[in-house]
Amino acid sequence: MEKLGTHILAEFYNCNLDTLNDHKLIEKYMVEAAKTANATVVTSNFHMFNPWGVSGVVVIQESHLTIHTWPEYGYASIDVFTCGGDVDPWLAFEYLKDKLDAEQTDTDEVPRGIIDNIRKHSNNKYKDIKYKVSV
Amino acid sequence: MEKLGTHILAEFYNCNLDTLNDHKLIEKYMVEAAKTANATVVTSNFHMFNPWGVSGVVVIQESHLTIHTWPEYGYASIDVFTCGGDVDPWLAFEYLKDKLDAEQTDTDEVPRGIIDNIRKHSNNKYKDIKYKVSV
Repeated sequence: MEKLGTHILAEFYNCNLDTLNDHKLIEKYMVEAAKTANATVVTSNFHMFNPWGVSGVVVIQESHLTIHTWPEYGYASIDVFTCGGDVDPWLAFEYLKDKLDAEQTDTDEVPRGIIDNIRKHSNNKYKDIKYKVSV
Repeated sequence: MEKLGTHILAEFYNCNLDTLNDHKLIEKYMVEAAKTANATVVTSNFHMFNPWGVSGVVVIQESHLTIHTWPEYGYASIDVFTCGGDVDPWLAFEYLKDKLDAEQTDTDEVPRGIIDNIRKHSNNKYKDIKYKVSV
């Protein structure tokens, strides 16, 4: 199936509690995960919540990575959304699973921007639809 | 089903092309969408890509909203991820559908942080699992 992007929704269970509550470490791992997937990092933005938890995003040229952590339950919600054939979101997933010491994970891979749907819903106005690398 | 968050994955087809390519307008609409859903905005970060397209994220206290636009195909990929019972992600979706003039949309609502799974995968270490409002 032709598509513009691939989106992994990941649930990380029973992770390292200290890691999940360390926003500097989480940011470092998320940025490194993006690079591991061969993505180009545009910017990152991470926040610590009171009393616990980290929320953050890494904007990449090829879309984004996000994380929300609940250290009090050992749980993190991670999204890796990438576009184009040069980036592999599963490499980011594997990297983070290792760094966060996730004992269990659930994942779902969702196609985004399915070409046939874009064509159909635009009355076939666009013929040559593909992901183009930004320069 | 008890869960920490609700995540809407939305595909917007045949939108207004000028809107999709205007990163200031897209940012304004995304921030407004978050507020419409009753979320508390922490920060937002939007980028224009060369030659076309906008990528951006709104970090909210209750998780995040993201968008990636392909003005050349009238298409946008939108995520609205919210936690807690006081925020309704569908209000953000409806707001954006209207503002971007999306003729067609596909949506998928995914539960994030399913309580039973967090319990199961942590060997029932955590009993009282719920979303807590940050203060």
